Amino acid sequence: MAYRAAVAGASGYTGAELLRLLESHPGFVTRIATSREFAGRKVADVYPNLRTDLTYTGLEPSALEDADLAFLALPHGASMEIGARLAKAGVAVVDLSADFRLKDAALYPEWFGKEHAAPETLGDWAYGLPELHRGEIKQARAVANPGCYPTAAILALAPLVKAGLVDPASIVVSAASGVSGAGRKLTNDIHFSHVDANFRAYGLPTHKHTPEMEQELGALAGAAVRITFIPHLVPMPRGLLATCVANANGDGDPAEIAHAMYDGEPFVRVLDVGMPETKYTLGSNQCLLGYSRDTRTGRIVAVAAIDNLGKGAAGQALQNANLMLGLPEDEGLTGGGLYP
Amino acid sequence: MAYRAAVAGASGYTGAELLRLLESHPGFVTRIATSREFAGRKVADVYPNLRTDLTYTGLEPSALEDADLAFLALPHGASMEIGARLAKAGVAVVDLSADFRLKDAALYPEWFGKEHAAPETLGDWAYGLPELHRGEIKQARAVANPGCYPTAAILALAPLVKAGLVDPASIVVSAASGVSGAGRKLTNDIHFSHVDANFRAYGLPTHKHTPEMEQELGALAGAAVRITFIPHLVPMPRGLLATCVANANGDGDPAEIAHAMYDGEPFVRVLDVGMPETKYTLGSNQCLLGYSRDTRTGRIVAVAAIDNLGKGAAGQALQNANLMLGLPEDEGLTGGGLYP
Amino acid sequence: MAYRAAVAGASGYTGAELLRLLESHPGFVTRIATSREFAGRKVADVYPNLRTDLTYTGLEPSALEDADLAFLALPHGASMEIGARLAKAGVAVVDLSADFRLKDAALYPEWFGKEHAAPETLGDWAYGLPELHRGEIKQARAVANPGCYPTAAILALAPLVKAGLVDPASIVVSAASGVSGAGRKLTNDIHFSHVDANFRAYGLPTHKHTPEMEQELGALAGAAVRITFIPHLVPMPRGLLATCVANANGDGDPAEIAHAMYDGEPFVRVLDVGMPETKYTLGSNQCLLGYSRDTRTGRIVAVAAIDNLGKGAAGQALQNANLMLGLPEDEGLTGGGLYP
Amino acid sequence: MAYRAAVAGASGYTGAELLRLLESHPGFVTRIATSREFAGRKVADVYPNLRTDLTYTGLEPSALEDADLAFLALPHGASMEIGARLAKAGVAVVDLSADFRLKDAALYPEWFGKEHAAPETLGDWAYGLPELHRGEIKQARAVANPGCYPTAAILALAPLVKAGLVDPASIVVSAASGVSGAGRKLTNDIHFSHVDANFRAYGLPTHKHTPEMEQELGALAGAAVRITFIPHLVPMPRGLLATCVANANGDGDPAEIAHAMYDGEPFVRVLDVGMPETKYTLGSNQCLLGYSRDTRTGRIVAVAAIDNLGKGAAGQALQNANLMLGLPEDEGLTGGGLYP
Repeated sequence: MAYRAAVAGASGYTGAELLRLLESHPGFVTRIATSREFAGRKVADVYPNLRTDLTYTGLEPSALEDADLAFLALPHGASMEIGARLAKAGVAVVDLSADFRLKDAALYPEWFGKEHAAPETLGDWAYGLPELHRGEIKQARAVANPGCYPTAAILALAPLVKAGLVDPASIVVSAASGVSGAGRKLTNDIHFSHVDANFRAYGLPTHKHTPEMEQELGALAGAAVRITFIPHLVPMPRGLLATCVANANGDGDPAEIAHAMYDGEPFVRVLDVGMPETKYTLGSNQCLLGYSRDTRTGRIVAVAAIDNLGKGAAGQALQNANLMLGLPEDEGLTGGGLYP
Repeated sequence: MAYRAAVAGASGYTGAELLRLLESHPGFVTRIATSREFAGRKVADVYPNLRTDLTYTGLEPSALEDADLAFLALPHGASMEIGARLAKAGVAVVDLSADFRLKDAALYPEWFGKEHAAPETLGDWAYGLPELHRGEIKQARAVANPGCYPTAAILALAPLVKAGLVDPASIVVSAASGVSGAGRKLTNDIHFSHVDANFRAYGLPTHKHTPEMEQELGALAGAAVRITFIPHLVPMPRGLLATCVANANGDGDPAEIAHAMYDGEPFVRVLDVGMPETKYTLGSNQCLLGYSRDTRTGRIVAVAAIDNLGKGAAGQALQNANLMLGLPEDEGLTGGGLYP
Repeated sequence: MAYRAAVAGASGYTGAELLRLLESHPGFVTRIATSREFAGRKVADVYPNLRTDLTYTGLEPSALEDADLAFLALPHGASMEIGARLAKAGVAVVDLSADFRLKDAALYPEWFGKEHAAPETLGDWAYGLPELHRGEIKQARAVANPGCYPTAAILALAPLVKAGLVDPASIVVSAASGVSGAGRKLTNDIHFSHVDANFRAYGLPTHKHTPEMEQELGALAGAAVRITFIPHLVPMPRGLLATCVANANGDGDPAEIAHAMYDGEPFVRVLDVGMPETKYTLGSNQCLLGYSRDTRTGRIVAVAAIDNLGKGAAGQALQNANLMLGLPEDEGLTGGGLYP
Repeated sequence: MAYRAAVAGASGYTGAELLRLLESHPGFVTRIATSREFAGRKVADVYPNLRTDLTYTGLEPSALEDADLAFLALPHGASMEIGARLAKAGVAVVDLSADFRLKDAALYPEWFGKEHAAPETLGDWAYGLPELHRGEIKQARAVANPGCYPTAAILALAPLVKAGLVDPASIVVSAASGVSGAGRKLTNDIHFSHVDANFRAYGLPTHKHTPEMEQELGALAGAAVRITFIPHLVPMPRGLLATCVANANGDGDPAEIAHAMYDGEPFVRVLDVGMPETKYTLGSNQCLLGYSRDTRTGRIVAVAAIDNLGKGAAGQALQNANLMLGLPEDEGLTGGGLYP
């Protein structure tokens, strides 16, 4: 028998990707897809790519309580209350916003400009990066799905930081994402004629995904970490590459250390030949990792590629849902990347 | 128990897409993937997007005979002998080249520049467009998978030609394809810097996909048909749109006639709102159709969108394989298009 | 001494391209650049690509009267009154909208949904396609700059229609444009994530550029012409290809006939090898033409490539301005296309 | 009277861009365009974008000696002998390869794998970055045109290094280029279907453009500098962004320091609003700079955008040629970037 799934915020790119993944997942049947903008319209008329008979409904928390598991793909800030309510009502929840990712409530006013609405509940949420927190996620009723940039950067750096192979005070993350990371909202920045054949940095000097990286890598380092994080926009719809640079401590082989940590993981692959390219992850839940050492400068470069809507959002959310409900971790996620 | 599949020519785009689709298909296990160029190398090293342990082998016909079903994704001309041999050995065969698509052997020298090597076997092959030949395909041991352009153009025009709604002598097909249609081969024409932000017609005055369209639409019209077919290249990796124009006979509603023919089909959808766009078919086996009538000029415009590597090649091949082996027609093909 | 130029509507893509071209034109100094949205802001802050000290002003007709020549790059409908006023005040005017392109006032309600505001002035405007109306343009004080699709389709078909080589009743124009043709306005249709790797037809069953083609080709044919015109959108910022199909009358060589008409033209080139590709026209005022005959079907295919913002808009406007003021026709327009 | 120009290697992207720029330059007439591949063919048949009557010739050094100025756009290594010969013959030379960029001959075997063929001549060559070496270039008969990455990174960092605002030992340059930077050569890496919608790092752990950066920034710092340089490939034909990170020394305002150095420069613009985007430089000789300080981490981020074929190659070569011959520095280079 299949679990009943609900997707709140199912007309954004992440929510629609969840609908697409759930369609082919034998363990779930999607009962609810909410959308403020499209309530009352058939999902397949809004997204002709999807093969579904669902009709969008408005967001009613009580309706979500009938689901076995709810995915919340709402704008940042909108999950704080409903997430806490559903968790209390016994619904398993995977929240895809930043609302429950940070353990330290004091970081919310600093990075998001307002106090957290339910700071006392932050401790109930697992940080949904299975490669670091699998055991905790399996026990959790509420999981905060990581941001796309943190997913890539943390996976790339975790083995090095944990092993003490790099100086955590020296980390610079220069990353680049496809445009879907900015969502469906219309702004001048996402006009095709502006974005095509254009490359730019944005979000300087600081981006809201930074504290997640510092929280997780700091925990591994056993010390506070400060990271310079510089995101860029690439003229492509999907895909994310994190290029991480740090000063090396000692002569350890970074790829070997990463292999030791990730071999056996279903969705993380350390490459022995070549370096990660975003295209190989398109539409999949894969993370590809590659490492290089610049002996002239004593620095290590760690590179991670993911699909920002896959392992960076909807794919990882489904991986977390599988873990929470005791399903095989890779169910519904076995597909390789779409190439070319 | 799963059927044993073999993919000959598994390092081209179409062959690699077959490997990707077969990975997630519960009814098949892929035993053989051949590649002249990469024999001996692990598939996942050549295509890091794929999650497979297969190693490429050379093309040995006797090895293919151990498969229950062989997909031949070889260059045009290369299937003529091996296809006939495998069919004789009792292996179910889906050939993705043009080698067995035309019933009239005389068309091979005219359109492909040389005589057919096994003209007496042409009658054994079903033309693998399930929406027109489902019964025949179910009985067949050998299926000739249609070309990408013919798949789109025939699906768009078939209802109109069959119903006599258009004058078959007046058909003009102006179509456009993503670059993967030209294959992995390196030519100046596919250099990124040349293709990007470029749009052009090619193959004038005649393209080898024309006789397939004429054969199938002629059969529906009950008369010989001559089509002007003009392909174009679009700066995108996948996707194919066929825009078909013909003079109308009478006042019938083309969309209604198409609905009558295709409603119930698992992979063909006649749109009631909007017109087909290639992006909605990305990575899927879907064909989207739309119709319009220009009352000023008395012409009907029929538009079809497919993924040239999906319904236009590997997806349709798997659909045919399902039919040949008695599996559910949409098994392994239920996924919606990847968007965005 | 340089002429004083004004650009009304200088923050749209066409207006900004006029500013770019005028910067490098020795015969003009731009005095006025108007923009409702950006009045008061420096042009180079809005368009960092431009090397200019101009500041945007609001649209005041009296200010425009101080110019020697005014380019009107306003939304359709907005030029009707100001265009007539400036022409009356003795300012040379090139209008880039559709407001004065059609000679027959009755076509405005049919195609644009409302009566023309100054139908009595339509006769004062020359249709600004120099290759057909050079003499008239040189004498004119008011020129209606052609649409981008009509520029390409008329240039491709004019020699054939004039020579009687094709049946004008049989013309089908299947054309495709880059996204800048839709302007800077934000709509879901131009979101990068939607447009990229997407190809689609739009505007069916009829598009407002059709009557221009019928007017000009009808005049050459000496008879009323009805054209089926199907525009498509290509995932690229600039570039336009018109693929025109018509039934042939007789055996004349279309390329030869086109050479006879265009050799000597500064901006039209009939290719003897290969077919036109949009990329070769990027940023230039060039039009490339190619011809093919399908002897199986008795049809001729004529293909034209232009930059929709170059020969399809701002470039041609400057060509017209040069002619009106007695400057060398190609002044400021000698640059080749940007490749790659 | 115009100077006679020659372009050796005029069928590569850089050489063809030189031909395009020279067409519109009133001070030059191009007499010779060499190409091994296309000798004997008309340039306008190979590059239909160009409006020229030139025919490609083979590379004969003696023919080049008749030019007033020769641009060498040959493969790396090929200029060593001919460059020295032409300089000796009194022809002004701008070499666009790396063959004469490094002052220290010992760096050639280290970075390029072989000894320099004419190490004694290295001192005769000026490093052609006018913003740093204008006086020297004006006196020189031989100029080594900088690499594209070094042009961007050096311009971004020079003011900071010169002013001591950053620690030169801490510099990390993460840069990204359009595909034309890899040249016209066909490799699997530049297949459209592979590059489109793909982003990747390449050239790790070290890239040949590194020693140029270290040479020029080391001279400004007055000390040896070691830089970690990580190039990436962006799915676009042109454009280059250098994102440079370094630890700050003190509280100086980096933008203010950059303004002081570059205000008055014809081709370098320090932005006060927003950050550089590659699209604004398309087809131009512009360099846009932007600065940001991350006070949390004590690092400064300096970003530069150029067109890799413009200021990064052909445009800068023409700027150098203007300086060498006493022409106005911006002649033939006044055009703004093509947008969109």
